[in-house]
Amino acid sequence: MTDSIAFKTRKWVRPEDLNANGTLFGGSLLKWIDEEATIYTILQLGNRRVVTKLVSEINFVSSAIKGDIIEMGLVATKFGRTSLTMRAEVRNMITQKSILTVDHIVFVSLDEQGKPVPHGYTEATDDRNRLLVTE
Amino acid sequence: MTDSIAFKTRKWVRPEDLNANGTLFGGSLLKWIDEEATIYTILQLGNRRVVTKLVSEINFVSSAIKGDIIEMGLVATKFGRTSLTMRAEVRNMITQKSILTVDHIVFVSLDEQGKPVPHGYTEATDDRNRLLVTE
Amino acid sequence: MTDSIAFKTRKWVRPEDLNANGTLFGGSLLKWIDEEATIYTILQLGNRRVVTKLVSEINFVSSAIKGDIIEMGLVATKFGRTSLTMRAEVRNMITQKSILTVDHIVFVSLDEQGKPVPHGYTEATDDRNRLLVTE
Amino acid sequence: MTDSIAFKTRKWVRPEDLNANGTLFGGSLLKWIDEEATIYTILQLGNRRVVTKLVSEINFVSSAIKGDIIEMGLVATKFGRTSLTMRAEVRNMITQKSILTVDHIVFVSLDEQGKPVPHGYTEATDDRNRLLVTE
Amino acid sequence: MTDSIAFKTRKWVRPEDLNANGTLFGGSLLKWIDEEATIYTILQLGNRRVVTKLVSEINFVSSAIKGDIIEMGLVATKFGRTSLTMRAEVRNMITQKSILTVDHIVFVSLDEQGKPVPHGYTEATDDRNRLLVTE
Amino acid sequence: MTDSIAFKTRKWVRPEDLNANGTLFGGSLLKWIDEEATIYTILQLGNRRVVTKLVSEINFVSSAIKGDIIEMGLVATKFGRTSLTMRAEVRNMITQKSILTVDHIVFVSLDEQGKPVPHGYTEATDDRNRLLVTE
Repeated sequence: MTDSIAFKTRKWVRPEDLNANGTLFGGSLLKWIDEEATIYTILQLGNRRVVTKLVSEINFVSSAIKGDIIEMGLVATKFGRTSLTMRAEVRNMITQKSILTVDHIVFVSLDEQGKPVPHGYTEATDDRNRLLVTE
Repeated sequence: MTDSIAFKTRKWVRPEDLNANGTLFGGSLLKWIDEEATIYTILQLGNRRVVTKLVSEINFVSSAIKGDIIEMGLVATKFGRTSLTMRAEVRNMITQKSILTVDHIVFVSLDEQGKPVPHGYTEATDDRNRLLVTE
Repeated sequence: MTDSIAFKTRKWVRPEDLNANGTLFGGSLLKWIDEEATIYTILQLGNRRVVTKLVSEINFVSSAIKGDIIEMGLVATKFGRTSLTMRAEVRNMITQKSILTVDHIVFVSLDEQGKPVPHGYTEATDDRNRLLVTE
Repeated sequence: MTDSIAFKTRKWVRPEDLNANGTLFGGSLLKWIDEEATIYTILQLGNRRVVTKLVSEINFVSSAIKGDIIEMGLVATKFGRTSLTMRAEVRNMITQKSILTVDHIVFVSLDEQGKPVPHGYTEATDDRNRLLVTE
Repeated sequence: MTDSIAFKTRKWVRPEDLNANGTLFGGSLLKWIDEEATIYTILQLGNRRVVTKLVSEINFVSSAIKGDIIEMGLVATKFGRTSLTMRAEVRNMITQKSILTVDHIVFVSLDEQGKPVPHGYTEATDDRNRLLVTE
Repeated sequence: MTDSIAFKTRKWVRPEDLNANGTLFGGSLLKWIDEEATIYTILQLGNRRVVTKLVSEINFVSSAIKGDIIEMGLVATKFGRTSLTMRAEVRNMITQKSILTVDHIVFVSLDEQGKPVPHGYTEATDDRNRLLVTE
């Protein structure tokens, strides 16, 4: 399995994303990375019913300010039986300076009753047809 | 100049993005594409002071519903003296079905007084160092 | 059919509506005008199931800043068989200076299956009873 | 002084405006009416520095649901030396059924130091040039 | 019945909560206090179906600025047959200076058809098991 | 140092907080807990300039649905020279069932230049006067 992070979604930091000190609000960052991880997981596991199970070791390396452009990256690091583990990084798109790193984000694949269900995959895909096959 | 659109930012359609009929609110779509075009322009023109000048011919080709994953794509189609013209498309990330197409989005590069200023570029870059050079 | 725009909904530009340059975010403007056009169409066609089909030629004439009061205006310019075409303008409420003009916004009337359905109207009304009649 | 309310700003109730019971969230209604009263006061007093001082007797007469179109109305009922008192109503735009009534909303005109300042007006205007004169 | 207000929910005033004058937007305050009153009522009446019926005499005593921490407090003042009346206060958490006071907020308990229903309680509880019993 | 968590801020889960599967969006939860931790830290360290430095081991124990009332709790577990470490829990306010636990949230106290600065405290306070003393 490759370990290289692909950066996709970008954000332009606007006034509504700032905390009272004028830097990027940590809570907004966490919300954005969770949404991006959800999208990544749905595409990898071919299942829309996925939930965040665990997030481990988030480092706020540097901050961002109004007008900065940031980009979010994810890479699968482990396919469990019902889970997917990812590594994540958010960085400044111009300077490529790291803003946030997350060692492990674990999502779980659920069936219609909300119980963990095996997803059957063992490695990451760049294709987008897993969801088409399984639904 | 290449004409192929690169799709970057993704969105996961959540309840807050829906209109009263349960489909993706057109106003949210327009807001998202304007933000993505701003980011694209800043990177291409190496200038944070850019504004939307004109948007021409937006077609709402199909809709999206809760839980859909959509992706936004842009490509530069013309570098003017102070402007940049782009073509945009939003599509369903799984089915690749088009949701929205925009023929022309024109942004203008401004100086510190808010007046149009020549940007000096004539073609698109995939690098990210224009902003570093000019600021 | 009259061509005079009636200005109704007003907005007070707050910090959350600004882009990183401190002027009104174009994406917010587009979201607001799409919402106002939806309301106008529902009232004219007497049908809650309407969708944006096409937006043509949006000009960002001038900008607005924090604390400005702006107003949004619309007027029907063409009643098609299943569609309604409008012209729109957003202006500063005090100076009456134009901020945004849209040549054509086209909405389509849909039936319960989401298919275009004739609306039966040929001109604009100032009354509000079309929806009462048809539902 | 006239007592007839002029209805201006309209809202289309979307999923993000609902409470957990599926009806329009009272807090959103209060936020909308406060914004509309701010706009009305700025136009009447020709001063951008105005603050809500007192709101008296808000009656939630009926509710609204997803897809409803509502309109907000205000009328000046008393011009004090530094204050303006208004009466407000929010109603369903189609049925004209009242949703919310407010007996008294009092705003105060402030100077640059944030102290109450006489506004010099004694009755309501339909013109929009008060702000131009005083700033 | 005790008259002492218990302060629970806290807010950190961020840029998105400000009005155009740089102070806390009154509409946001009203939205927050309505949400807190809803939570308080659900816990006291053991019923999730509750609606705001009347709000009487809201005084905006002082303002707040970016970075302030505020806290919201409520206390039941009267248990009616189908209603609950509360008194509310919002204050600066550090200086304990009052920001907003509300004399009466009245909520009503509803049945599944949306009709007022007796709740059977005559005094406030600090326990949290009323909802467990009644649902 | 006490290890008992005090639950303060409450949230009423509304439609805008849900993900596409109809359960509470993990990103919203993370945003809420980061805001509450910021408030807790400001009060403990008597300094408004604090930033999230590290978040370690977040467990999403169970979910919440529309209409649930949840409460957020924090407790200081370690006072470093320039940092404060906390443990956090979010739980359902009625059933007291745990929704989210966080082992370590580390914030750092900054000076006016944004550099870490010793805060001088070694244990938690229930008073609110630290900020008054230091500013």
